[in-house]
Amino acid sequence: MTTEITAPPAIGLAALLDQDPAFRLHEGGKLETRPSVQVRDLDDLSLAYTPGVARVCTAIAERPELADDYTWRSNVVAVVTDGTAVLGLGDIGPTAAMPVMEGKALLFKQFGGVDSVPICLGCTDVDELVETIVRMAPSFGGINLEDISAPRCFEVERRLREVLDIPVFHDDQHGTAIVVLAALRNAARVTGRRLWDLRAVVAGAGASGLSVASMLMNAGIGEVAVSDSKGVLHTGRDDLNPHKAIIAGCTNQSGHTGTTEEALAGADVFIGLSGSTISEQAIASMAPGSIVFALSNPEPEIHPGIAQEHAAVVATGRSDFPNQINNVLAFPGVFRGALSARASAITENMKIAAAHALAAVVEEELSADRIIPEPFDPRVVPAVAAAVADQARRDGVARLPGL
Amino acid sequence: MTTEITAPPAIGLAALLDQDPAFRLHEGGKLETRPSVQVRDLDDLSLAYTPGVARVCTAIAERPELADDYTWRSNVVAVVTDGTAVLGLGDIGPTAAMPVMEGKALLFKQFGGVDSVPICLGCTDVDELVETIVRMAPSFGGINLEDISAPRCFEVERRLREVLDIPVFHDDQHGTAIVVLAALRNAARVTGRRLWDLRAVVAGAGASGLSVASMLMNAGIGEVAVSDSKGVLHTGRDDLNPHKAIIAGCTNQSGHTGTTEEALAGADVFIGLSGSTISEQAIASMAPGSIVFALSNPEPEIHPGIAQEHAAVVATGRSDFPNQINNVLAFPGVFRGALSARASAITENMKIAAAHALAAVVEEELSADRIIPEPFDPRVVPAVAAAVADQARRDGVARLPGL
Repeated sequence: MTTEITAPPAIGLAALLDQDPAFRLHEGGKLETRPSVQVRDLDDLSLAYTPGVARVCTAIAERPELADDYTWRSNVVAVVTDGTAVLGLGDIGPTAAMPVMEGKALLFKQFGGVDSVPICLGCTDVDELVETIVRMAPSFGGINLEDISAPRCFEVERRLREVLDIPVFHDDQHGTAIVVLAALRNAARVTGRRLWDLRAVVAGAGASGLSVASMLMNAGIGEVAVSDSKGVLHTGRDDLNPHKAIIAGCTNQSGHTGTTEEALAGADVFIGLSGSTISEQAIASMAPGSIVFALSNPEPEIHPGIAQEHAAVVATGRSDFPNQINNVLAFPGVFRGALSARASAITENMKIAAAHALAAVVEEELSADRIIPEPFDPRVVPAVAAAVADQARRDGVARLPGL
Repeated sequence: MTTEITAPPAIGLAALLDQDPAFRLHEGGKLETRPSVQVRDLDDLSLAYTPGVARVCTAIAERPELADDYTWRSNVVAVVTDGTAVLGLGDIGPTAAMPVMEGKALLFKQFGGVDSVPICLGCTDVDELVETIVRMAPSFGGINLEDISAPRCFEVERRLREVLDIPVFHDDQHGTAIVVLAALRNAARVTGRRLWDLRAVVAGAGASGLSVASMLMNAGIGEVAVSDSKGVLHTGRDDLNPHKAIIAGCTNQSGHTGTTEEALAGADVFIGLSGSTISEQAIASMAPGSIVFALSNPEPEIHPGIAQEHAAVVATGRSDFPNQINNVLAFPGVFRGALSARASAITENMKIAAAHALAAVVEEELSADRIIPEPFDPRVVPAVAAAVADQARRDGVARLPGL
């Protein structure tokens, strides 16, 4: 593995706007709305708008569930952010967050056939976020929360799930967890083990780190420890927010109290979601046949070429190395399945079903460099969507037979 | 004029869903979102999404005005309602209002090339509506308020205009007023008069009635009186809300204190925006060469065939009679012009400019049956948009040279 990871050269903004293909691609934005019916003449207009539309409104007023059949609501997801934790950029605010939300909306449509509207909110208070999203909710079939900083994101999602009867999904948490679980299931298989054989260390106790740890436990992993910048989470620490404290209480059975690197000695799995670095020595100290997911972007915690000298399977978040852990493998199929089943929620079982379905896509072609499908693999969304819709029915949250 | 106006036969909902072409057209909704850029492979993905998108976000965080060039924001309008005054149906709530808002969004795109997102809010308190829309505003280039009941709509619009630096436009008020003013200007011309020669009676003191009266006065009409269900608004009445009281104080110079029909005796213009009816005798009592705009939908205040026996010019809100007063003649061009000029507001002058430009479209082909263009006339939007953008520059609210 010789690809160099280098930071782009620092150039002025004017030069960037001229030369950077990302800016050229973003000119005028990446999304549009379009009529999905033709309005060619006054007759069409009198059906799509007054007076014909009034009959549809009246019917929905009498039977509100008809809105799912006669408006776009049941196929449209709001991608909602407050701009406080955008990619690795941090709190850049709602206006600067829009390109990411537009990109997400674009991917929802292109990969999942899900209509999607980016909503960047100019408030960060949990109460205000919740009440604003609840007020908008009659317009949408689902809410995808995005890039809201921890720990507020947990509270926002929990409260929305309590009051709304449509799917609410914080992609930074659950999308990442689904793809990590899928990749880990296949990495275990490639190295001749099962999930319950594995001891994992998750570096990073933000939205994605805590969610990954939680999902790995729900899926039956042998043991997991989570670390933040001060070391491994354990019940003896008095500096933990409530979300970290809960995870500390149900992880780390081995009782690690030191650094991430100390906990890695003899571990089977490293999952980096921290934005920090990890030393080659620490990776070398892991158990034989180790699995390294260095997922920070754009700089993995350790160069994958170096990790590969010590580990049996290496994955990153980057497209220029094998085994890219990319959320686009999860969220389009998850919402496609949930919306098609008219699910009232996305349950934990539905997320685990999504992960297993995603892993199964490459079951026949598994290798150390192929533990997860590529983003453009056309088998991914149908497989994930079918599994999610099916599990929605089993969990009793589906309003339609689904796909 | 022999076309009959009849109510549709009362049939059951199941039969409606099967037989009514309006329901067939509405299946699955009328709107979709679409990528406006191609994402065909990992290279495209790395520009439209991570890591490339981060450079665009960073640039916007440094210079927020770049969001207008590198996101869809500057071309996207939120069509916002609380569902309290939907068409003639009244307070049917946000879910049942969606077909109208989707229709509006469809028309924004088809007629004006303006992307548009329907937002049906589950709150009706003025403070809640204002704070919710303000929080969403970073996502949008303009706010089109729709079907919010009077008098709350006045307060919501006023407060949003105060705090937001994007166009805010309550279409039920200003869209209607623009089209009525355009039609009245041409009707006056057809009958050999000018606006300042005319005495008008506006029946209806809701959002559209008060706004029409206000715009006619700003445009220089001779005299206008406004009536509600209790009769003509005058300063002696103690049952008026503040908005009606203001209009009462600056209209009705003749001092009418009776009914709408009494005020019509000798009047030049009747503008019906009331949802009620007006007698043939009252129309017959108007001045010679009278102008009757019976705009209630689907039932005009008086059958246009009957009105035509007494009046020189008759208009309705319906597409099956000549001279249809349809808001689609205004809002797509108004927002097209305002967005293209990156206007920070829609001023009163911009609305009057829109009305004059709309009237001028049919200047060369004027007749009693052709005082206003038809909705599909391709000259309308470019003419209105250019006039609005031009006036935005004159009024100092444009951020770009515009069209």
